[in-house]
Parts: sequence; structure tokens; C-alpha cells
Amino acid sequence: MTTIHDLSQSQRGIDLNCDFGESYGVYTFGQDTELLAHVTSVNIACGFHAGDPHAMREAVYRAAEAGAAIGAHPGLPDRLGFGRREMAVSAQEVFDMTLYQIGALDAFVRAAGVSLRHVKPHGALYHMAGRSEELADAFVRAVSVFDPSLIIYGQWGSELLTAANKHNMQSASEIFADRSYQADGTLTPRNRQGATLASAEEALLQTLSIITTGTARTIEGKEIVIQGDTVCLHGDGQRAGEFAAALRKGLEAAGIALQPPTPRR
Amino acid sequence: MTTIHDLSQSQRGIDLNCDFGESYGVYTFGQDTELLAHVTSVNIACGFHAGDPHAMREAVYRAAEAGAAIGAHPGLPDRLGFGRREMAVSAQEVFDMTLYQIGALDAFVRAAGVSLRHVKPHGALYHMAGRSEELADAFVRAVSVFDPSLIIYGQWGSELLTAANKHNMQSASEIFADRSYQADGTLTPRNRQGATLASAEEALLQTLSIITTGTARTIEGKEIVIQGDTVCLHGDGQRAGEFAAALRKGLEAAGIALQPPTPRR
Amino acid sequence: MTTIHDLSQSQRGIDLNCDFGESYGVYTFGQDTELLAHVTSVNIACGFHAGDPHAMREAVYRAAEAGAAIGAHPGLPDRLGFGRREMAVSAQEVFDMTLYQIGALDAFVRAAGVSLRHVKPHGALYHMAGRSEELADAFVRAVSVFDPSLIIYGQWGSELLTAANKHNMQSASEIFADRSYQADGTLTPRNRQGATLASAEEALLQTLSIITTGTARTIEGKEIVIQGDTVCLHGDGQRAGEFAAALRKGLEAAGIALQPPTPRR
Amino acid sequence: MTTIHDLSQSQRGIDLNCDFGESYGVYTFGQDTELLAHVTSVNIACGFHAGDPHAMREAVYRAAEAGAAIGAHPGLPDRLGFGRREMAVSAQEVFDMTLYQIGALDAFVRAAGVSLRHVKPHGALYHMAGRSEELADAFVRAVSVFDPSLIIYGQWGSELLTAANKHNMQSASEIFADRSYQADGTLTPRNRQGATLASAEEALLQTLSIITTGTARTIEGKEIVIQGDTVCLHGDGQRAGEFAAALRKGLEAAGIALQPPTPRR
Repeated sequence: MTTIHDLSQSQRGIDLNCDFGESYGVYTFGQDTELLAHVTSVNIACGFHAGDPHAMREAVYRAAEAGAAIGAHPGLPDRLGFGRREMAVSAQEVFDMTLYQIGALDAFVRAAGVSLRHVKPHGALYHMAGRSEELADAFVRAVSVFDPSLIIYGQWGSELLTAANKHNMQSASEIFADRSYQADGTLTPRNRQGATLASAEEALLQTLSIITTGTARTIEGKEIVIQGDTVCLHGDGQRAGEFAAALRKGLEAAGIALQPPTPRR
Repeated sequence: MTTIHDLSQSQRGIDLNCDFGESYGVYTFGQDTELLAHVTSVNIACGFHAGDPHAMREAVYRAAEAGAAIGAHPGLPDRLGFGRREMAVSAQEVFDMTLYQIGALDAFVRAAGVSLRHVKPHGALYHMAGRSEELADAFVRAVSVFDPSLIIYGQWGSELLTAANKHNMQSASEIFADRSYQADGTLTPRNRQGATLASAEEALLQTLSIITTGTARTIEGKEIVIQGDTVCLHGDGQRAGEFAAALRKGLEAAGIALQPPTPRR
Repeated sequence: MTTIHDLSQSQRGIDLNCDFGESYGVYTFGQDTELLAHVTSVNIACGFHAGDPHAMREAVYRAAEAGAAIGAHPGLPDRLGFGRREMAVSAQEVFDMTLYQIGALDAFVRAAGVSLRHVKPHGALYHMAGRSEELADAFVRAVSVFDPSLIIYGQWGSELLTAANKHNMQSASEIFADRSYQADGTLTPRNRQGATLASAEEALLQTLSIITTGTARTIEGKEIVIQGDTVCLHGDGQRAGEFAAALRKGLEAAGIALQPPTPRR
Repeated sequence: MTTIHDLSQSQRGIDLNCDFGESYGVYTFGQDTELLAHVTSVNIACGFHAGDPHAMREAVYRAAEAGAAIGAHPGLPDRLGFGRREMAVSAQEVFDMTLYQIGALDAFVRAAGVSLRHVKPHGALYHMAGRSEELADAFVRAVSVFDPSLIIYGQWGSELLTAANKHNMQSASEIFADRSYQADGTLTPRNRQGATLASAEEALLQTLSIITTGTARTIEGKEIVIQGDTVCLHGDGQRAGEFAAALRKGLEAAGIALQPPTPRR
């Protein structure tokens, strides 16, 4: 698989991404301000699971001003469930909803005078497209038909990266700083003990291990290969900002360059 | 005001437009098939007042296949009211909702390998932006920031055409074939007698008068100046297809070229 | 299991039900007029998968005027998918959305001076609650807490009937006139040959068999036990009205009383 | 006009109400916890402008547990605008949307074993029905047809109180503690100086004046008659809880009984 890993590895660089612009009308959500100071790329909600035209414009301008790379973050049409409930959508539906949402966000990105850099599916769509070859293919085709130079963010080991490769799209393998891995490369389910790493230090160590050696130690104590091009930072914990700051500081101290994936084209 | 009138006048040409792609999920609406055979441009719903990602893709492909010029048809966020109920939206909200919807539709237009040609607001948004300088300005700015070569469709005499001119955007003055006009150039309100022309013949005569002489006879019997670059055909009457066919046939018989507005740039 | 079967069996009676009031705003759907002449009970959409306050009021008045028994037809919050796409909703979410929708419809039922008689989940919710003990339990509890005298409509053999029994609620076992059954009592999946009965005559024969003998011959040719208290008539085929008329006529000719389930209390 | 004023006046009592349960999915809004400690009645959002089935159930249970009187708070179908944008809805639409929302909330109220006590329109609907005789009539008819013993909350001097009286419904005249009044009894518009009272002390004095003397001093210094049966407390200021606590404490110190309106029937 051709990912940006080879490039970032040689530079010992990594991207830090977070979801962004998930407010809606009078409702605010997430910790955009706290995280924007630390991340190098943002995934902006496109009005289906979260976000609205006003919130999208604001989010794009804020991210552009901060110099963060901007990505579209399409989700399932389920605002009530915040796009977190899996739905039995067809591949055609995934293609259509993805294309729609990328186009909508890109209008604001162009209006801000910057460029869209990546696309990452949200919540249940991320997981569904991560394990279904058919849905991953539909998602990647929608991105490709919109702009073949966009970078697909997908979980390490997921069908999203495979589909990106198949369609000759650039991808970024996403890792999770604060979650433990299992022997098969998947995340330990949240309902199992040890799913979440106990401290920011452990999270930093795991992230450094993945960046510098391309391996991580699983919850079972086994060493496995993991490529990491971008680290997902969550915005819904109370200490999300602190965690992001600590991780960034630790990575910088270790000489890791913090930067968004570089488009090949 | 610089409209395409001068151009089309010299060619004795006119555009016939209709709303298009207004289905939603299992629900169908309008007479897309009947009208597509007769119009030269279509206004495709963008998912707010009507339409959805699937319907938009279908509509774009069908219009592209038929060779119709494709326009975005943004509406108010009121699906239940089909975008026909006026809402107290701010200029910023009009800007944001317009930009969002144009971007979303354009993604499908690009995917179909064609180009977006015009933008026409729908229903209540059309009327509100038609009479409010502030909302017209917001609407036109949203179109302009997306693509300054797009053509604004607006009612003859409306603020939309004024705003397009102010922002150096190309516009097309829209006339209504089957509606009578008042002395001030506005349409006779539907609740007044004579608001709707009695026959397709009368509609044809009025349209021909506007195209060839730049004038129409009002309901009061007065002759007024009206420029017409595009004729709005309604799709919600039972005989919409027949009416469109008769109008088209009559215009062709009179030597009028049926064609979409030609972009200046 | 205590169903109304014992009662209806002795009377050789059956209920014919159909979905009703599934329009939305300008959009119409289904064949309410054609079917209302033939059914004895209707399931009225409650504004989530279909319907809106206006459509619900109209549907209630029409059904009341025709003397049809009125049921609530709650669905998943997925208007775009018409409630047909399964969603990963929790039992609590099923409870809440069901209670909400029943309450909303009942307001119109009371306003019309009639009474709500039954509740039947729509589409994906019908299937999900039909096979999940947990979701069926949540659904039935929501109905019970609203009014314990309401009748639960659920597919023969489904968890809905089991849950109704467990909560001491009256239920009606639903059968499908135009679908073949498998040896385990489930419907033959639509993608398999023979899933749909070839003619109205076959549908009538199967229905009569279930009503009078409590058995049906499966697609494999085996005889199985099936209780049928109510027959589901579909409104989305082109000949839905004809089919309903033929079935009704055939049942009446065979001396079967057509009537909604009689509440125990 | 027959309001509860005569009753409450003799008892020197007053109701303190606030909007409640305005969260939606993952989004929270307002200061339910802070205000619930001080108010005597709550207006619970019904899923149109805010709220969802889950939030409604939670809100009802919390209010019931706190002993607050529960009212339905129907709003316009505009979640993006939080029901604050006026829409050109018809009287029939107001009737239908009001009936739907009351029914939906009442289902949760019944499930909690308590009773619905009042109905107050939200935001733009409150203002539209407050000044339009036709819309006020439609709103009150919807409440009346659902349950004629419910109490209509409407602004002092508004068409809502007139319509309630016309339909022989009990009403409660609502006053605003922190807003100044004009000579015609309307609130000073927010964009004018002095629209908001400078301190909690001033708000308390104005409220006490209205309760004990039935008069208030306007922004112009004139004394006018104002009946006040219920005081609206806002939940969206940062110090909403403090303000509510101070007002309640001051009213209690003055010997005013804090209690919801008592239904006549």
C-alpha cells in the first residue's frame, strides 16, 4: 500500500487531527478553540451529522487563519444521533452523501481562499467504511471523482486505506494516541479493561513508538506493525486540550515534526 | 443594467427554464420527464427545500444527457414547506445557505463532467431576495464568491438583477409566460382575477411580445417595458408538459432560437 | 400466547390493515383513497419516517369518516430513507421515539373524537423489534405506558407478539397475503424465487387457509401453523387497490367477517 | 378578561416559569439545573425548535421530581433557527403543529404519572401568535381541543390572552422581570437603551410593583396597568441562576407566595 508513511517516516513527522466545527444553530459542541492551538489538520463537519452553513463558514475561516490543513468530515444523515448510529445505507447512498457533503464544505473552503486537503468519514460512517470493502470503495470513489488529489484519512488496517490504494488515491493511516491496540491491529473495544491508555505519558510513548519504529505493543503485550501518518485527537473529553498540548509538547521534544500530510500532487 | 438581453434580443433567442430534481427519498414531485423535452435550462433543487444527494445526482445526469444547461436552485431550510414559506433569515444566513447549496450541487455537476451555468433562488427565497436589496446582495455575493462566471436568474425588475449588476455578475431576466403583469412590472397577484393567462395562445403572444418588442401589455391594458432572457415554466400543473410543448412550438414557429443564456466569460 | 386469534377464529373474522397518511408537505405517497375502501384498520405515520402534522390530521379524519380502526405507525427518525433503513438504536431510543410518536398521533385522534386502537411499528423498526427481544420489549413498554388497552400489531412468530404477551398487552398476529412462508414461519426473502405469490387467487387461498385452518403451505410444500388476526395490505404497488378489492371480495364470499381486532378491555 | 390574576392577586402569589429541556442529541442548552431550583413551572420543548424524545423524557422526569408544574412549549419547525425566526405559517399550520407537539409531550408527562398544566408557545411563535388574532386563535383552539383545562401562557396585552378568553380557556398573563415596559404595555425593544433593567434589584422592584399594585412604571416614567400571573425567567444568560435565586428570595421576603397558576377546573 502506498501511504504517506514512507515520506513522513523519513522525516519523522506526524499529523495531529481533530474533528472541528460540530456546532449546530444555537448549540455548541467540542473544544475547537482548545484543540486548534495544537493540531495540524482539522476535519470539518458538513451539515449532516453536525455543522450547518454558518458553523461551516466559521470553522473554515478559523482553521484557515490558524494554518491548519482543512478536511471534509462527511457523516451519516442522522443529526439526532450525531452520526454515531450505524445505518443500513447502500454503497450508492454512501457515494451520494459523501459527494454532497464534500462539495458543500469545499464551497466555504474556496470562499476562504484556501484548499481542501483531505476527507475523513465521521463516526459510524468511519467504522462502516473501515470494515466494508463495498462502502469504502463508494466513499473513496466519491472523493476521487470530486478531486483525485485529496487525501483519504482512514484507520490503520481499514478498508478505507485499501480502497484508497486501489483507486490510486493518497491516504493517511490514522492512529489513536489514547487507545490500546489488539494483536490484529484493531483498537481494544471500549468496554474492555485497558481500552484507554491510563495517562498522557503512555499515549505519548505509544505514539512515539509507532512513529519512530512503526510498531506498537498490544494490550496482550505483543509487538505489532502499525503505520501512523496522523493521530486522531478527541474533542469531547473534559481535558482534551491538556491532552493535546501534552502530546504535542512530547512529540516536539522528541524531534518529531508536526505537520499535515503532504499531497503527492 | 447589463443583462444578456442585448445579446439574446439581437438573436431573437430565449431560454426556457424549469425547476428540476425536486423529489425526496421515496417521494417524487414535478414533471421532470415531461418538461425536460422542452426546456433549455433546469434549476436543480439542492437538498434544502427539496432534493437529496441521490435525487441531485440523478437530476444532474438526466439534464446533462438531455443537453440542458444546469443551474443550482437553492432554497430556504424548510422541507416541510417546500421552501415556499417566507422566513426571517438574515443576510448572513442567506449567504451561507446559498454557498452551501451551490457547492453541494456543483459536486454532482463536476462528477457528471459538465459545468454549472446559473443559479436561481427558489420559492420564498426568490421572492425575498427579489425585493430586499440586502438579501439580494447576500445571495449574489455567495454566487460570485463561488464562481463569478455563473449567471444569476432573477425576476424582471427585481433586486436580484440589480445586485448582479452591482457585483458585475451576468444575469438573466426571468419572465413568466402564463402570468399577467401589472403597470409597475410586477406580476398580478394570484388571488386577483386575470392573474393567470387564459390559454397557451395568450401566453405565447405575451412571450413573443416581450422577446421581439421588449414590451408587454399589462392587465390594465397599458404597454410596459419588460426584458426577458428566460421563461419560467412551472412543473406542478397537470398540463405542464403540454403547455411547455405548445410554447416551445410557437416560439420556434416564430423563428425564436431556444437556447440557454450564453456566459460572457 | 394470548392473541385475539381465539376470538377471531371462532368468528372466522379477519382484519385488513394498511399503512396510511404517508404524505409529507407537498409530497404525496401511497394509495390512501384506493385502500381505504377495503381495509378495516389503518396504520397512520407519525411524522418521523413519513407524515407531518397536517397529513396526520387529514389521515385521521379520513380514516374516522370511513370507520376504519386507527393505529399509530411509529418509525425510525429517517425521513430520507422512509424508515426502511435499519439503524443501531438503543432500547431506550426505541422506547422514547415510540412514546413520542404515539402521543403526537393520539392528539389528532382525540381531536377527531375517536379512539386510538392499535400500534404497529413501521419498516425497519417493525423488523428490528420483530427479531430483537430487547427492542420489542422497549416498543411494547412504550405502548403500554401510554395506554395498556392498545393492541400491538406484530408479525406472526415475532418478538413483538411475545413481548406483548409478557406485558399482558393484547396483540394481533399479522400475516402477509401476497408473500410465501418458509418452514420456520418466516417470510421467504424477496430476493428468492417464489417470495411473492403469483396471483390474487393464490393470495386469497393462502389467507383463507390461515384463517380457517390456522395453517399455510410453505414454499417448500410443508404445512405449518400460522395464526392470522390481521392481513397487511401494501399501498405501494400500482395495483394495490385492485388486489385489496379482490382479497376483500374473496374473503367476504367465503363468509369471513372483515373487522378490526376487538379490544379486550 | 378572565385570567388567574384575580385569584393570584388576592393571594399575592406569582408563578416563576422558564424554558426547559432544550437540549438535542449530543447538544446541551440552557441552565436547566440552575433554574429548576427556583422556578415553579417549566415550559418543555417538544422536538420542533428544540428537544427530542430522549430529552423530553428526561426533562419531564426532572421537572416532576422537583415538583414544578409542567407545560408544553411548542415551537416553529425550525431547529436550525431554534424557533426564533418568524415564518409565514398559516393558521391551520399553527393549529396542526401545536396539537402535534402537545400530544407528543403529554405522552411523556402521562408516563411520568403527572399532568400537563399549561402550554406556552416558543420564540417566534410566541410573538406571532401574540400579535395575530388569527394565529392566536389557531393556537388556543389546538390547546383547547387537546384539553380545555390547560392554561395558556401569553404575554400581557397579547392576542393569546384575548383568544384564551374568547375560547373560555384559562390563561396566565406573563411578565418579564428583567425588561422595561413602554407606555402601551409592550416591552421596550432590545435595541433601545433601557430595554433591560440594570440590576436584579430593579427587576425585583418592578415585579413586586406588578404583583402588589397591578402597575409598573414605564421606561418613559409613566405608570401603567399590568397584570402578572407568571414571570418568565431566561435560561441563556450566564448568570441566569443567580438572577432567578435573587428574584425568588426577594419575592419570598416580601411575602409573595411562589406557586404555579391553579387550574380552575
